[in-house]
Amino acid sequence: MSTGYTDKEAVAGLDAELPMIDCWPNQFRGYEIEIEIPEFTSVCPKTGLPDFGTIIIRYEPDEFCLELKSLKQYILAYRNLGIFYENVVNRILQDVVRACKPVRCEVVGRFTPRGGISSRIRATYMKSSSGS
Amino acid sequence: MSTGYTDKEAVAGLDAELPMIDCWPNQFRGYEIEIEIPEFTSVCPKTGLPDFGTIIIRYEPDEFCLELKSLKQYILAYRNLGIFYENVVNRILQDVVRACKPVRCEVVGRFTPRGGISSRIRATYMKSSSGS
Amino acid sequence: MSTGYTDKEAVAGLDAELPMIDCWPNQFRGYEIEIEIPEFTSVCPKTGLPDFGTIIIRYEPDEFCLELKSLKQYILAYRNLGIFYENVVNRILQDVVRACKPVRCEVVGRFTPRGGISSRIRATYMKSSSGS
Amino acid sequence: MSTGYTDKEAVAGLDAELPMIDCWPNQFRGYEIEIEIPEFTSVCPKTGLPDFGTIIIRYEPDEFCLELKSLKQYILAYRNLGIFYENVVNRILQDVVRACKPVRCEVVGRFTPRGGISSRIRATYMKSSSGS
Amino acid sequence: MSTGYTDKEAVAGLDAELPMIDCWPNQFRGYEIEIEIPEFTSVCPKTGLPDFGTIIIRYEPDEFCLELKSLKQYILAYRNLGIFYENVVNRILQDVVRACKPVRCEVVGRFTPRGGISSRIRATYMKSSSGS
Amino acid sequence: MSTGYTDKEAVAGLDAELPMIDCWPNQFRGYEIEIEIPEFTSVCPKTGLPDFGTIIIRYEPDEFCLELKSLKQYILAYRNLGIFYENVVNRILQDVVRACKPVRCEVVGRFTPRGGISSRIRATYMKSSSGS
Amino acid sequence: MSTGYTDKEAVAGLDAELPMIDCWPNQFRGYEIEIEIPEFTSVCPKTGLPDFGTIIIRYEPDEFCLELKSLKQYILAYRNLGIFYENVVNRILQDVVRACKPVRCEVVGRFTPRGGISSRIRATYMKSSSGS
Amino acid sequence: MSTGYTDKEAVAGLDAELPMIDCWPNQFRGYEIEIEIPEFTSVCPKTGLPDFGTIIIRYEPDEFCLELKSLKQYILAYRNLGIFYENVVNRILQDVVRACKPVRCEVVGRFTPRGGISSRIRATYMKSSSGS
Amino acid sequence: MSTGYTDKEAVAGLDAELPMIDCWPNQFRGYEIEIEIPEFTSVCPKTGLPDFGTIIIRYEPDEFCLELKSLKQYILAYRNLGIFYENVVNRILQDVVRACKPVRCEVVGRFTPRGGISSRIRATYMKSSSGS
Amino acid sequence: MSTGYTDKEAVAGLDAELPMIDCWPNQFRGYEIEIEIPEFTSVCPKTGLPDFGTIIIRYEPDEFCLELKSLKQYILAYRNLGIFYENVVNRILQDVVRACKPVRCEVVGRFTPRGGISSRIRATYMKSSSGS
Repeated sequence: MSTGYTDKEAVAGLDAELPMIDCWPNQFRGYEIEIEIPEFTSVCPKTGLPDFGTIIIRYEPDEFCLELKSLKQYILAYRNLGIFYENVVNRILQDVVRACKPVRCEVVGRFTPRGGISSRIRATYMKSSSGS
Repeated sequence: MSTGYTDKEAVAGLDAELPMIDCWPNQFRGYEIEIEIPEFTSVCPKTGLPDFGTIIIRYEPDEFCLELKSLKQYILAYRNLGIFYENVVNRILQDVVRACKPVRCEVVGRFTPRGGISSRIRATYMKSSSGS
Repeated sequence: MSTGYTDKEAVAGLDAELPMIDCWPNQFRGYEIEIEIPEFTSVCPKTGLPDFGTIIIRYEPDEFCLELKSLKQYILAYRNLGIFYENVVNRILQDVVRACKPVRCEVVGRFTPRGGISSRIRATYMKSSSGS
Repeated sequence: MSTGYTDKEAVAGLDAELPMIDCWPNQFRGYEIEIEIPEFTSVCPKTGLPDFGTIIIRYEPDEFCLELKSLKQYILAYRNLGIFYENVVNRILQDVVRACKPVRCEVVGRFTPRGGISSRIRATYMKSSSGS
Repeated sequence: MSTGYTDKEAVAGLDAELPMIDCWPNQFRGYEIEIEIPEFTSVCPKTGLPDFGTIIIRYEPDEFCLELKSLKQYILAYRNLGIFYENVVNRILQDVVRACKPVRCEVVGRFTPRGGISSRIRATYMKSSSGS
Repeated sequence: MSTGYTDKEAVAGLDAELPMIDCWPNQFRGYEIEIEIPEFTSVCPKTGLPDFGTIIIRYEPDEFCLELKSLKQYILAYRNLGIFYENVVNRILQDVVRACKPVRCEVVGRFTPRGGISSRIRATYMKSSSGS
Repeated sequence: MSTGYTDKEAVAGLDAELPMIDCWPNQFRGYEIEIEIPEFTSVCPKTGLPDFGTIIIRYEPDEFCLELKSLKQYILAYRNLGIFYENVVNRILQDVVRACKPVRCEVVGRFTPRGGISSRIRATYMKSSSGS
Repeated sequence: MSTGYTDKEAVAGLDAELPMIDCWPNQFRGYEIEIEIPEFTSVCPKTGLPDFGTIIIRYEPDEFCLELKSLKQYILAYRNLGIFYENVVNRILQDVVRACKPVRCEVVGRFTPRGGISSRIRATYMKSSSGS
Repeated sequence: MSTGYTDKEAVAGLDAELPMIDCWPNQFRGYEIEIEIPEFTSVCPKTGLPDFGTIIIRYEPDEFCLELKSLKQYILAYRNLGIFYENVVNRILQDVVRACKPVRCEVVGRFTPRGGISSRIRATYMKSSSGS
Repeated sequence: MSTGYTDKEAVAGLDAELPMIDCWPNQFRGYEIEIEIPEFTSVCPKTGLPDFGTIIIRYEPDEFCLELKSLKQYILAYRNLGIFYENVVNRILQDVVRACKPVRCEVVGRFTPRGGISSRIRATYMKSSSGS
């Protein structure tokens, strides 16, 4: 099967060092938080051109809530990072889950059109019943 | 795990005294009431700046319905109160449930963007079958 | 528990005499009819001021369909009637069910904002399997 | 129970002769086709005034797909036909099912307001497992 | 049963040779990708006139993701191809499934009105548990 | 020329007594005020059926501004008044001009559809240069 | 210059007899009335297929206002009349001007797409200063 | 002429001390700046209840541009100030003109509905040709 | 001044032979016709990739009206023509003016985004008073 | 007059070196081109945080048209440039005018909200009759 990208491009940005996402102690249980970030931008690892999109993070907090100022710093760090759409969404999910250990979490990325084609990526996490 | 807020900020506004929410005797059963309040405003306990948003209360009444005028007074009392988004929504849920003891209740808060990031919080309550 | 309304206000309009809703013999079974009435208006029993809203009736007819002209006359009769939102929706449900004995029925009322607060009420009916 | 329509009006248009709906051999299975016709018009059997609406046909084809040109001719034939909303939607469902024998089918009619009241009718068909 | 199309028209375009859709190695599992192409155009095999529409591809990748540049070339190849709406959607589904062997996939085509009638076609694929 | 209305209907409501519109002393000059009242309702003098619409008042105040509470009382008084659309708009213009003697004023009425026909009426006033 | 229509088609419908439009005595001067009729339909004189559109009549009345019920009857008479878009709009302008002799008048027709092409026609009339 | 407000209410908030609006040296000439503030809130001097609205400032700068952070502090100071809509808009215009001495300036306030009535106020300033 | 296009590309498509646009004899004077074609497509002469857009033709007819079927054939001929946006709009204006010799004419082209950039081109024609 | 910005910040980015904007020879005269770039981003010289917005360039070309690919490269160069909104819009106008010497040109920048305040800047250029 031919593939349009090199192996290096396929994993670009996945192990880049990014700022920590801080948290604060959650005071309630059993509710949902949704955060929308319409000003996401990163760089295409193939063309070097910027990509633009909206990131939505939806989660049920357990002991911790995401602190929005550090989340903003974390998102800003993608600005000059070369990384594919699919990897952006999955890496944000991983980093959010590590930071606040939620009961469940969903990350959606809606990206603006390129060549008449637009993309939407959705990834989800569910804490296993035996703990995380 | 580092947290971006002090412990005091994390619980700010949770035990502030707020006006009682009055009720009136419900005449029917098994139906749903949704109340939308697009003019909610409170104060960020960290920065002292005002927050703005829309609060939606959706509930199935049991013996009592929320009286709208006292609900308005209750909501107005958040105007100069320092309290986080997540705590606003959960506290409104608690106070509404205490006031009218509904069969079930859901409170949603949609807050306007700060630093290019907007939030939506959703909390729910279900009366246990053995009574409340 | 204090209540913001008198007992008399709480039941206002519930036993007012209203025009009959006529029907016509349904020719088919197992389908759904939705009727939207965006020009509903009644009077607040507390303040005497007019209320405005949209009423939606959704039902699965059994032997009879609602005749729209008489339904319109029925709805017009609320124009100068003092009655609360919650009671409007539940009474319309009762009267529609009595008139056409549907398999199931749902009535929704969306009312315009008062004091920055808007309301939506939803009531439902399901014919019991042992007949109506 | 008084009824607002005569028996003749209640069945008007149900046995009118309408053009055949042609079909063509379906090449695939297990997918869905939705057809929207926003320019539907017929005549009210009671007042003789024209009615306007949008018809939506949604079906899973079995051996045959609806041919759009003949479907258009079929729909045009309602232009001067006296028939109630409810009967329009149910008759179209019957005729479509007879023409293409689909696995399942749904017909929705959304009609423009009359006297401040608008209607939406929805009828569905599901092929029984023992054949059609 | 009369049919409005010849047998040849009914299968037009189904075995035309189209460009390969390239892929790249997926780095994550259990998430969804949605691609929207609002600039789809092909040709009606009966009239020779162009058709226009939007194609949406939604899939859960397994080992491979669709490479967008080659997908664009694949879609461009329909520009002068005579093929019916229903066959467009089902063929795209087949070709996408063959290219990236996804866990599940859905293709939707929304086509612009012809003679006051517009169409939407939806086809789905689910990998069987015993492999593809 | 035949006319569809009697002379009495043509002038209905024009000399009915309505509440005074109060004013308060304007503190600035050379600016514009626009007031929108989406809950207007009156009665058709021919059919006795209610009419619904939105009234917009746009004026440049001179010495006085319209007081909104008394304006609301004034508008409520149309609720059970028989009067045609065209006369509603022109009479409101007259009464507003008499109350606050503005530099200029415009009244627009947008009325909901009747029999598939909707109306919009616009009347204007300009203070003559030789005083009011 | 070749022309796609016969001479007879070009004038079709222009001298058909249509119902009179009634009027009633206008009570004010110097204001504007706009009437929107979204349910206009006529027939294409070339293909015999129905056309659909919205007609907007905007005029400043002099001695007479258009009576809406007779205007509706007048518009209904186009339902089975063969006439081109351009002629529809210009003829309605002529007939409205003859009926109510307005100070000025504008008629706009917005017609639904045919073959992916939609049309909007606008014609205007201004009473000459030397009288009508 | 009776007036619904006391003299004191009519001028409430007009001479309250508010924060200075800072400026920075404009680098260009002959262009326009528009600033939209959808989170404006003040207090009604009659009822003590909060008002909500959107303020739009549109100006052509001369030597100075408005500094946005201090403008935000200035607007926040209305939060607990008793002042009427009309005075809000005119006072903001005065204070903006004093701060940045623009070539021209326009301030618009759109306020949310109260009692089914919403208001929009617009005030403008033009530097006289003989200098400011 | 460097230019990004070759001379040949800059004039590509300007002298291609296209179908004639037919006309029919106009029956009225002094009115306006607007035609919207949302399904325009041509080819970029530099990249060979398809462009998509909407073309709007607005004109005041003199002796002739554009015949829509031949206009459609004319527009279809751009489908495989290499030509820039700016030249598309200006050439359509030239060809329409030659075909129907209107009193005045305007052509607008709105093209879909390429690389995050979208374009709108507008060209106009006015018959000189001494004839065309 | 205090100013919230240092002199250095006020001119930041104004003399940064940016890529040339290429042109191609215009083939027509007297028409307008509008280009919309919704993916503009730069950096605030005070806070170092990114700004986001939409840039619209509207011009009447004289001898040259802007080449879109080089315009895109020019716009991309703002991505990591510290510069205020007002200066962004005025500098783009200057650079576009230098590149293609248009008859007239307008540049508009709409920037996303910061602290609940959003901005729109508009600058215009008109070639003087005695040449540029």
